[in-house]
Amino acid sequence: MREIPGGKAYRLLEAGPIVLVTTADRGRANVMTMGFHMMIQHDPPLVGCVIGPWDHSFAALRETGECVISIPGADLASKVVDIGNCSGADTDKFERFHLTTLPSRAVKPPSIAECVANIECTVADDAMVDRYSLFILAVKAITINDSRRERRTLHHNGDGTFSIDGRTVDLRNRMVRWKQFQVDV
Amino acid sequence: MREIPGGKAYRLLEAGPIVLVTTADRGRANVMTMGFHMMIQHDPPLVGCVIGPWDHSFAALRETGECVISIPGADLASKVVDIGNCSGADTDKFERFHLTTLPSRAVKPPSIAECVANIECTVADDAMVDRYSLFILAVKAITINDSRRERRTLHHNGDGTFSIDGRTVDLRNRMVRWKQFQVDV
Repeated sequence: MREIPGGKAYRLLEAGPIVLVTTADRGRANVMTMGFHMMIQHDPPLVGCVIGPWDHSFAALRETGECVISIPGADLASKVVDIGNCSGADTDKFERFHLTTLPSRAVKPPSIAECVANIECTVADDAMVDRYSLFILAVKAITINDSRRERRTLHHNGDGTFSIDGRTVDLRNRMVRWKQFQVDV
Repeated sequence: MREIPGGKAYRLLEAGPIVLVTTADRGRANVMTMGFHMMIQHDPPLVGCVIGPWDHSFAALRETGECVISIPGADLASKVVDIGNCSGADTDKFERFHLTTLPSRAVKPPSIAECVANIECTVADDAMVDRYSLFILAVKAITINDSRRERRTLHHNGDGTFSIDGRTVDLRNRMVRWKQFQVDV
């Protein structure tokens, strides 16, 4: 796993991939699927995400203030849906879905070996949690798994259908106002 | 333009398309490009987005509390980038980029005829604007432009490159826990 600066989180998240989120509470890890998230700030990198009391992961996130946002490739589509359709309350999802946990660098929740990237986060602001279940997360570390062959990400259309990344359009030469964001991941 | 319920905003936004945002202040409309946005709540539909004081549209949004989130198809890629790389302070972007404005149903800022969908919004909560430039928007109306041939959306990788929607994966039959979200747009 190759580490890249946390400040490059926007390169991974702005495009809106469906993601997995790991938490760990008293040694017990869990993983959920998440589609409601966004970049909030480039530098220092902040991410917003909705995780609610209806999610088993909510209690662990509130308690520990840590999570890992893992980005699955298109090869994990079925697992991504199935993880989002069962609960950590009665299932060890890592075991059930044959996901390999790896120690993270900056936080206790595990990274996922089968994902393309793992973004380690801590809760920076929980002022909007009671009203909107909206956490503001600070990115603490990012690792990239260069060994994954399938690097296309999934975009959830909200109903169980997903768009897989297709062709890339390169318009970097037109980004005259935002040149500072032209860095390689 | 076909109207659909505002509650279907998640079908358009969860997948993370790059979007345009129109505002109007004292009769003068403007349009910007936005990549930092998310669904916050299905019903009633709430959207979070980052529009900051560095954006010319910020003042109009704060003043009027209204905007339209327009979703461009992949055919508009170059315009999307160019709109994000000049300012409404010195440019009439509708004229410069040959965008056709249409009256919106519920708000004063215009919809954009060349876009696939227009999501009309009002500011529901500005408590996080000072700290994060984060607006919470309520969706008031949505129109779909069925006449656009190009319906694939663009996903910004943060640096001026974009992924165009590719193949669709249909896993609706695995969404056993979220059946209520299986509705057609």
